[in-house]
Amino acid sequence: MSAPLRIAVAGLGTVGAGVLSLLKANAELIAARCGRALEVVAVSARDRSKDRGVDISDFAWFDDPVAMAAAPEVDVVVELIGGADGSAKAVVEAALDRGRDVVTANKALLAHHGSALAARAEAGGAGLAYEAAVAGGIPIIKTLREGLSANGFARIYGILNGTCNYILTTMRETGRDFEGVLKEAQELGYAEADPSFDIDGVDAAHKLAILTALAYGCEVDLDGVYVEGIRNVTSTDIDFAEELGYRIKLLGLARRIDGKVEQRVHPCMVAKEAPIASVEGVFNAVVAEGDAVDSIVAEGRGAGAGPTASAVVADLADLARGLRLPSFGIPAGRLAVLPAQPMVQHVGCYYIRLMCVDRPGVIADVAAALRDEAISVESLVQRGRDPHEAVPVVLTTHETQEAGLRRALARIGQLETVVEAPRLIRIEAL
Amino acid sequence: MSAPLRIAVAGLGTVGAGVLSLLKANAELIAARCGRALEVVAVSARDRSKDRGVDISDFAWFDDPVAMAAAPEVDVVVELIGGADGSAKAVVEAALDRGRDVVTANKALLAHHGSALAARAEAGGAGLAYEAAVAGGIPIIKTLREGLSANGFARIYGILNGTCNYILTTMRETGRDFEGVLKEAQELGYAEADPSFDIDGVDAAHKLAILTALAYGCEVDLDGVYVEGIRNVTSTDIDFAEELGYRIKLLGLARRIDGKVEQRVHPCMVAKEAPIASVEGVFNAVVAEGDAVDSIVAEGRGAGAGPTASAVVADLADLARGLRLPSFGIPAGRLAVLPAQPMVQHVGCYYIRLMCVDRPGVIADVAAALRDEAISVESLVQRGRDPHEAVPVVLTTHETQEAGLRRALARIGQLETVVEAPRLIRIEAL
Repeated sequence: MSAPLRIAVAGLGTVGAGVLSLLKANAELIAARCGRALEVVAVSARDRSKDRGVDISDFAWFDDPVAMAAAPEVDVVVELIGGADGSAKAVVEAALDRGRDVVTANKALLAHHGSALAARAEAGGAGLAYEAAVAGGIPIIKTLREGLSANGFARIYGILNGTCNYILTTMRETGRDFEGVLKEAQELGYAEADPSFDIDGVDAAHKLAILTALAYGCEVDLDGVYVEGIRNVTSTDIDFAEELGYRIKLLGLARRIDGKVEQRVHPCMVAKEAPIASVEGVFNAVVAEGDAVDSIVAEGRGAGAGPTASAVVADLADLARGLRLPSFGIPAGRLAVLPAQPMVQHVGCYYIRLMCVDRPGVIADVAAALRDEAISVESLVQRGRDPHEAVPVVLTTHETQEAGLRRALARIGQLETVVEAPRLIRIEAL
Repeated sequence: MSAPLRIAVAGLGTVGAGVLSLLKANAELIAARCGRALEVVAVSARDRSKDRGVDISDFAWFDDPVAMAAAPEVDVVVELIGGADGSAKAVVEAALDRGRDVVTANKALLAHHGSALAARAEAGGAGLAYEAAVAGGIPIIKTLREGLSANGFARIYGILNGTCNYILTTMRETGRDFEGVLKEAQELGYAEADPSFDIDGVDAAHKLAILTALAYGCEVDLDGVYVEGIRNVTSTDIDFAEELGYRIKLLGLARRIDGKVEQRVHPCMVAKEAPIASVEGVFNAVVAEGDAVDSIVAEGRGAGAGPTASAVVADLADLARGLRLPSFGIPAGRLAVLPAQPMVQHVGCYYIRLMCVDRPGVIADVAAALRDEAISVESLVQRGRDPHEAVPVVLTTHETQEAGLRRALARIGQLETVVEAPRLIRIEAL
């Protein structure tokens, strides 16, 4: 056996404690597979005395994680502090600048600074691995970077946020509304006290930006991601989706279009028969459409101590085994800068829900607004009749460009008979 | 860029031609990812002049693939001849003995000689890679060996044969019987003229034996796999499965039990809600249950030129990038020899179908035989009444050991009122 790989762990929250536990529980197995031990030598966190369910007394303690990253006895720094900047970024940079390998689960950091950090890693001759940053326990980074390395990708998409998927699944299964289910998810620990990071799509956008860079060999472009969360999805929409043969999922999708890259995160209507439609609850799934392999689906838990630790330790095992590749599959200096395809240029089918006063002529006004933008209606349903309250009118369109649709909806939204802002959900052919 | 990786391809059937096409079509992309070109320098096949849809005039031609494997200008030999012995084995051995890396799609070869070849590769300092041997385009070998390297595996199972899955799916969807659907599958090219390799479970057993060795760090033990194909699955069974809330799938399953390993390939009843139940048609899927990651599902095409070539070229790209690991994840000399758990010791739930003469007392005789083996019946259904013809009687059992069940069925089979050999299908809790 070779010398142990000496590991320093910065951040001892749920995932950090999970990594320490897993390295201990499966130490023998992992050492057999790596041909050497994976040995934690140092840890750093905010509070030394906090009970984390794991014994840290054998490890050197650092109050300052940046000092730990620079300590001489360390081979790899595991960054589990989180956050796009601040101490997480300082730790990673300190390690990379010393040519020290870094393993991180920090999607925000990579989404904001991924290209720069990849370059910094290369300049220092270090590895920067981040399997745990996307889709938790699913080894999708390795799958795209190595397992499917022979493929050009027509499209990559997935359910990248378990909180949103849990909420949408529970809304469908129970018929309850968004607010109630969110509250329950918070009580169960599936959603944060401040849930906006998850439910507004920001977390999924971080992960998508990373997947896009890897799949298309381009710089990470978080600003290029169109983001829309699930706050506006109502149980009415979920009922209509069911009736139309769809499920509503928050997806992240990336594809190349004529030298540009389209990245978007928003609620989607997907056919019930699509493999991703049956991925429910807190599970994540990623679909890669390769030109040789066709469609590959990988499904698993997207969060939690065990699955995330599994990904972190897999990265450590790779380093222990001497497997080290450029962070985004190709050298950082060769990452392309691909312009973002603006969302207004998106072409697709749409579900539109209006809340209308039930009065003759409403549909005619709506239809005229769509006709004037050359939008072809596939179906139209008015649900119920009520002279005193607004009733839902649901339309689906044939393929059309989003710019025209938005203009039409702006006009429709100003009709006196339309009492709420029109809602749209994009229909994805998967 | 480094020097090109020089590749020799032995065998130019569907997969061989697919590999040549893919290396040509995505040459630039693959070279960018590998930091060097993947260059085919030599090929060998039975018939030089056959039209394969790819131009082979630029490559050195060898009538003898073993001579090609020994030729000086070759870095990697790709073996796509097939078969457990003969020329495929000779080519692989010739290359490994010269310290030359080998990539193969040959599951029969690995299932029969995997441990010996892994040792031979190590002795010669060569790599032996075989992503394409299991589940076609799904990178399940890399996923188990690297992506999930932090996990002990409670169980590994999957749909490993697309032909069987196509037949079972089509039987369910059309209500047609096995023979008719098999014939159609042969006409469509989904089944071979001699289909026994697929439908008798041999092909799935080969793949399972490979997965087991990798997951549990043990020698490949094909003889330890219990194998039963799908010939005896009738449309009556499929109807009953539907009624009981199950789908019938040919699964390969492996798990460790008290220092032994249980490997089995047979038709299974799986709950309709299980992710693997919705994997239909020619698709494959593998589920890995890891102690850290929980359950990971990978789904994709299990065969075909494109998906298989994707896996072969991914292995080549790994070698070009300098990623080379022991074939079964740990050094060949350390692979454990795990005794096989005999199928008679299997404990599980069972579906049993009897064809009985519709006469008073039949059920009493059947029930007595089960009682005498302490087998607890969960449900019993007799379908239809017909004084002139046998009618199906279907039972499901609670958990019981297979040895006792087989004794009971032997006794039941000898009842005068039971006119066909009793059929059993194992019910899997997934």
